Amino acid sequence: MPVNLPAPDIDTLFPIAGVRIGVTEAGVRKAGRKDLTVVLMDEGASVAGVFTSNRFCAAPVQICRQHLASGAGIRAMLINTGNANAGTGADGLARARSTCAALAQHLGISVEQILPFSTGVIMEPLPNERIEAGLAAAIADAKPGNWLRAAEGIMTTDTAPKAFGAQVTIGGVPVHITGISKGAGMIRPNMATMLGFIATDACVSQSVMQQLTRELAEGSFNRVTVDGDTSTNDSLVVIASNRAGHGVIESLDSPDGQALKNAMLGVARNLAQAIVRDGEGATKFIAIEVEGGRDAGECRQVAYAIAHSPLVKTAFFASDPNLGRILAAVGYAGIEDLDQSRIELFLDDVHVATQGGRNPAYREEDGQRVMKQSEITVRVGLGRGTATDTVWTCDLSHDYVTINADYRS
Amino acid sequence: MPVNLPAPDIDTLFPIAGVRIGVTEAGVRKAGRKDLTVVLMDEGASVAGVFTSNRFCAAPVQICRQHLASGAGIRAMLINTGNANAGTGADGLARARSTCAALAQHLGISVEQILPFSTGVIMEPLPNERIEAGLAAAIADAKPGNWLRAAEGIMTTDTAPKAFGAQVTIGGVPVHITGISKGAGMIRPNMATMLGFIATDACVSQSVMQQLTRELAEGSFNRVTVDGDTSTNDSLVVIASNRAGHGVIESLDSPDGQALKNAMLGVARNLAQAIVRDGEGATKFIAIEVEGGRDAGECRQVAYAIAHSPLVKTAFFASDPNLGRILAAVGYAGIEDLDQSRIELFLDDVHVATQGGRNPAYREEDGQRVMKQSEITVRVGLGRGTATDTVWTCDLSHDYVTINADYRS
Repeated sequence: MPVNLPAPDIDTLFPIAGVRIGVTEAGVRKAGRKDLTVVLMDEGASVAGVFTSNRFCAAPVQICRQHLASGAGIRAMLINTGNANAGTGADGLARARSTCAALAQHLGISVEQILPFSTGVIMEPLPNERIEAGLAAAIADAKPGNWLRAAEGIMTTDTAPKAFGAQVTIGGVPVHITGISKGAGMIRPNMATMLGFIATDACVSQSVMQQLTRELAEGSFNRVTVDGDTSTNDSLVVIASNRAGHGVIESLDSPDGQALKNAMLGVARNLAQAIVRDGEGATKFIAIEVEGGRDAGECRQVAYAIAHSPLVKTAFFASDPNLGRILAAVGYAGIEDLDQSRIELFLDDVHVATQGGRNPAYREEDGQRVMKQSEITVRVGLGRGTATDTVWTCDLSHDYVTINADYRS
Repeated sequence: MPVNLPAPDIDTLFPIAGVRIGVTEAGVRKAGRKDLTVVLMDEGASVAGVFTSNRFCAAPVQICRQHLASGAGIRAMLINTGNANAGTGADGLARARSTCAALAQHLGISVEQILPFSTGVIMEPLPNERIEAGLAAAIADAKPGNWLRAAEGIMTTDTAPKAFGAQVTIGGVPVHITGISKGAGMIRPNMATMLGFIATDACVSQSVMQQLTRELAEGSFNRVTVDGDTSTNDSLVVIASNRAGHGVIESLDSPDGQALKNAMLGVARNLAQAIVRDGEGATKFIAIEVEGGRDAGECRQVAYAIAHSPLVKTAFFASDPNLGRILAAVGYAGIEDLDQSRIELFLDDVHVATQGGRNPAYREEDGQRVMKQSEITVRVGLGRGTATDTVWTCDLSHDYVTINADYRS
């Protein structure tokens, strides 16, 4: 059961002019599952993506980078679940290219105009024939209103679809934003998450798309972690269909650029947090705010050390205010000249530790009360400067072990 | 149940001339547990220690560093379980000093000649009065043959005592080595482990003791990990009582120095591996050998990425050859210019992946066979150079979650 993840609100999953989505069952790994999704874009869309920093990046990630760099003008995305096509060497690249070529032929466009995405088991050959056989049905299904269907079509160990939308007025006209994401395990995005797609009808120059995508990833997907395992397939793609009718945004620093970015960031953050809320086995949603750092980087470093500590995560699962484990994680986060006597620790409003030791006024029952909540904020003060950063994570439960011990069976 | 951890062999736990050990029940946290150990040394012993790199190091660790630096000549160690005296600020330092002062008074020596050690829950006040009240009984119990009793006396979540000995001939006389360790969780030593004590009657100049201790730690405790959580209290202390009667070792590069170091390294490695074999919830003992690196550091970096991946650890628990997870961990280990097409992966004798993809000759049943074993060697080739390094770890099971969700209750 995801932690306080609302069911998608259909009324906010706006169709995006110029973008159609089709979903089908191709039997990639198992029969009877929606496992193949196509996203078709009219000519003229601005598209950018950011991808995993994992050096073992999957074949489709390598192809996405090539196709985006080709400048051919992206017209379609092809997404399969059930198989990640990672750790598959030259054969994996050939199979991914074959699926792109088949879709290009259906659509009468060039191969470079297609971005492929795969998610699922690593190091198994991609069954590209089954994907190619399913393309006609997926294309026939394509319509603008299919966002929820797509959110379902890209799920793997997810227990719920993840889709959010927003509306913002730019240049006097309404602009729509709709995004979907998937992911529950192997989640410690480092550029983007497992799979995230956000589309808007806003008019955005291709020249700022990469910066927009990177900034959206930094403020959302790059701030969540489930298990610290950076996937081989992380991908975030942002599409602007340029159909809303306002003046083209040429700079993110302009008032229109700021308005659009902030609205899109809200959607991106909801999508990223949804992945944590649906983290494998998660029973708690935890925000880790680190403040008083010399720079945001060291705050993030401390936040991730806490977020990845199995001891901290199991204490949250147990609702056990064994909070010394948080101090230990702060201490091994790698800040060489950290002065432990300046560390402060809060659990929501409860002041747990001060000057590196237990706060004399702290009572265990207060810690216990907060630990029992399903949403908890950990706040750490480093006492070294004014920088802050925040990371969102979940606890480590028996179900995490069960899910990952059984994933392939 | 520890993984293939033999019961201590009493016949090899040699008494060390000039070293006596006493154990008692002081009721530090719970009644009826041997929780207080003293190690008493005759005048003239050479002693050195290495300690945690955690910036949140415990009060006793801070005091050990001061007392070793004072040059006073260490005469006793005072070890309690049930309370780590970490995250306790100035009050924790005062309480630890109080226990040292009490023991110094009993023994008629100075405070600086005592090294204190604490292990247990973090951020709780040390009940120093109970420890001080137990000192007389511990001292009365002191005898050279008490090593196994001491190994039991320092256990916390350990399920079995960890003690190993060895004998080696130096300068024509027999030299004895006996060591004990403890630790099962919060184990990712980075200088030394939770608690390790190794004593020998060899004659070793104080001037080489620090180097000897550091090299022993590097080759043993600094190569094991259970959960990646570097403790606040890691300590390894090496004692040479200088009673064996051979010529004093003034250099580790001498033949005698090499012989002693190698014999001690065998004991240290057994003690360190014993911690992994008894790792919280462990069902498998896993050696991760990384070869073909440009330097040992990057090999270690890759080995730790694999050893800390919750996905890899749960796959081992499930005996599921979901080995793409290992490739993913290799990819996110942080080697920027890693060429995935050169990666080789072996599971014991089974060649799983070649040139970054699945080995065509690999059959899942072969991987399955190895995954079912209780001892597994993962071998990764990076194809970048000739350096190698090895890390030892265990799997992540339901019991790890249970143990750490229940530790304080």
